[in-house]
Amino acid sequence: MKLDALIIGAGPAGCTAAIYLARAGYSTLLLGSTPPGGQLLHTNEIENFPGFPEPLSGAELMMQMHKQCAGLKVPLSAEKAASVDLSANPFKTTASDGTVYESRTLIVATGATARWLNIESENRLRNKGVSACATCDGFFYRGKTVCVIGGGDSALGDAMFLSRFAASVKLIHRRDKLRACAALTAKAQSNPKISFVWDSTVEEILGGETVSGLRLKNVKTGQVSDLACNGVFLAIGHDPASELFDGKLDLDKEGYISVHDHTHTSVPGVFACGDVADPRYKQAVCAAGSGCMAALDARDYLNRL
Amino acid sequence: MKLDALIIGAGPAGCTAAIYLARAGYSTLLLGSTPPGGQLLHTNEIENFPGFPEPLSGAELMMQMHKQCAGLKVPLSAEKAASVDLSANPFKTTASDGTVYESRTLIVATGATARWLNIESENRLRNKGVSACATCDGFFYRGKTVCVIGGGDSALGDAMFLSRFAASVKLIHRRDKLRACAALTAKAQSNPKISFVWDSTVEEILGGETVSGLRLKNVKTGQVSDLACNGVFLAIGHDPASELFDGKLDLDKEGYISVHDHTHTSVPGVFACGDVADPRYKQAVCAAGSGCMAALDARDYLNRL
Repeated sequence: MKLDALIIGAGPAGCTAAIYLARAGYSTLLLGSTPPGGQLLHTNEIENFPGFPEPLSGAELMMQMHKQCAGLKVPLSAEKAASVDLSANPFKTTASDGTVYESRTLIVATGATARWLNIESENRLRNKGVSACATCDGFFYRGKTVCVIGGGDSALGDAMFLSRFAASVKLIHRRDKLRACAALTAKAQSNPKISFVWDSTVEEILGGETVSGLRLKNVKTGQVSDLACNGVFLAIGHDPASELFDGKLDLDKEGYISVHDHTHTSVPGVFACGDVADPRYKQAVCAAGSGCMAALDARDYLNRL
Repeated sequence: MKLDALIIGAGPAGCTAAIYLARAGYSTLLLGSTPPGGQLLHTNEIENFPGFPEPLSGAELMMQMHKQCAGLKVPLSAEKAASVDLSANPFKTTASDGTVYESRTLIVATGATARWLNIESENRLRNKGVSACATCDGFFYRGKTVCVIGGGDSALGDAMFLSRFAASVKLIHRRDKLRACAALTAKAQSNPKISFVWDSTVEEILGGETVSGLRLKNVKTGQVSDLACNGVFLAIGHDPASELFDGKLDLDKEGYISVHDHTHTSVPGVFACGDVADPRYKQAVCAAGSGCMAALDARDYLNRL
C-alpha cells in the first residue's frame, strides 16, 4: 500500500493531522495501537479542551476525533508500528501484523507516557486520587492535602501550582536535595503551604475507593511511616515513545524527537507532532495544534516533491 | 483593577489561554472587541476542529468557548484595547471605555485579518463562494472552477491545493510575473489544472446567491472581461493586528509579533499566541494550542516572579 502520508499514533496529534490531510485529498492511514487514542484514554474528566464547556472523559473526546476521521474516510489500523525504514523516499513502515506501508511522508505522533512508580496500589487508585498531570487535575483538589512525588523543575512547578488550590502540599523526594532551578526552589521553600519530605520513597499508596495517604520509606534510616493525603501527583518525568526512531531521527538527550520550524525532523518528509516532540507542555490541545501544523507542513512538502 | 493576566483578544487563542489560567486559579480578564470571537466569526462551516465530527459554524464554536470561559468565571469585556504601557510591571492596558487594567502578565491574542479586495460584491458574496482560506473551504469545491487571487507562495500553494479538488484553477495576478519561489512556480506551471491570467485586477465578483464569475481588468490594455467560476480564493496576504504593540514589542517585517521559545515576546511577562504571532498556519486549532502554551508560560513566569 502506497500512501501520501502515514501517521503513526492516533491520539489528538495524529487525529488532527489525519483530519487536515484527508480534507486536503491525500491518501492517509492512521496507525494506532490497541486501543488507539494515546494518553487521553487514561484521563477521567477533561475541562480544558477548548470548545467543550461540559467536562468529558478522555475516551469520549478521542471517540469524537476518531468519528471525525472515519467521516473523512481515514482508515485506522489498531496495529502498532514495528519498524521503520527512513533511508529512502517512499518511507517503509512495517506494522506488527507484518503489513508494509510505503508513504511519501511520515507523521510521527507516538506520544509520551508519564513515568509511574509501578506499584499495584498506584495502578488501582489511578484517576481516584493518583494523577500524573497537575495542570489537568489540580483544580479538583481545592482545600485538600496533596503530595507531589519528584524533585525536579516539574515537581516544584506542580507543587507551586497545586498550592493555589490545596490546603497543603507535601513534596516527597528520594534525595535530600532538589534538582530544580534555584529560583523555583527558593519560591517553593518560602511558600507556607509547601513542605518537604526528604530521602523518602513511596512504598504504597493507601486508600480504598480513593486515595487516603502514602506509606513512605526513609531511604537512609529504613523507617516506614504513613502520611495522610487526598491526592498524589507523580512528577518524575515522561518517556517519549521514540524508540522506533532511535538512530534514524535526531532525538534530544531525553529521547524527544528534535524538530525545527515547528514539525520538521532531521529527515525531510518526516514530521513530528504531539507529546513525542514536546518536552514542555504536553496538553491535548497543544498536541492537536501541532498535528495540524505537521499536516500542513507535509502538504507543503508533497506540493514541492 | 490588578490582574494576574490580561488577555487581549477573545478568539480561540485568547479563550484557550483564559481556560488554562482560570483553572490555575489566576485572576484573568478577556478583553475582546464587539463582537468577541475573532476571524472564526466569519467562518460558515468548520469541519477541521478536532473533536467535532459534525460541521459547525465559527460562531457556534466561539460560543462554546465563551461558555466554557464563563463557566470558569472569566470576565469578558467587549471593549477594545486602546493603548498599552509595557515599560514596567504591572503592565497597564487602557480599554476603549477608559478602564485601565493593571496586570502582572499580558497575553496578546489579537489575531490577524486576511486582506480583502474591499469591493462591495466581495463583501456581499463572502462565504457564498468568496473565501480567504483555501485550507478551510477548498474541500467544498470538488469538480468546480475556482479562481485564486495573488502571486506569492500562499497563492501558488492555494492553487496547488485547490487543484486536488477543483476541475480547473485560474490564478489571477496583477503582474506578469510571480513572487512565489521557483520550486512551487515550476510545479504549478506544470499542473494541467492550473492556468494563469496575468496583468489583471478584479473589478467585480459576479453572482446573485453565489459566485458565478469575475469581472477582470487588464492593467496594461485596460480591457475588461468576464471569467466564469464557482469560487474565489483571496491569497493576497494577512494583516496581523499588532499596531498597538509597534515600538513596544519586536515585530517581524510583516508586523507579526516575534516570539521565541513558543510564546515569549521581547518583553518578559508579555506572551503572544494565535494568528498575531503566526505568519504560517493560521488555523483555529493551532491558535488554541498556542493559547494553551502562552497560559502555561505565563503561569511559569508568575511562579517565578
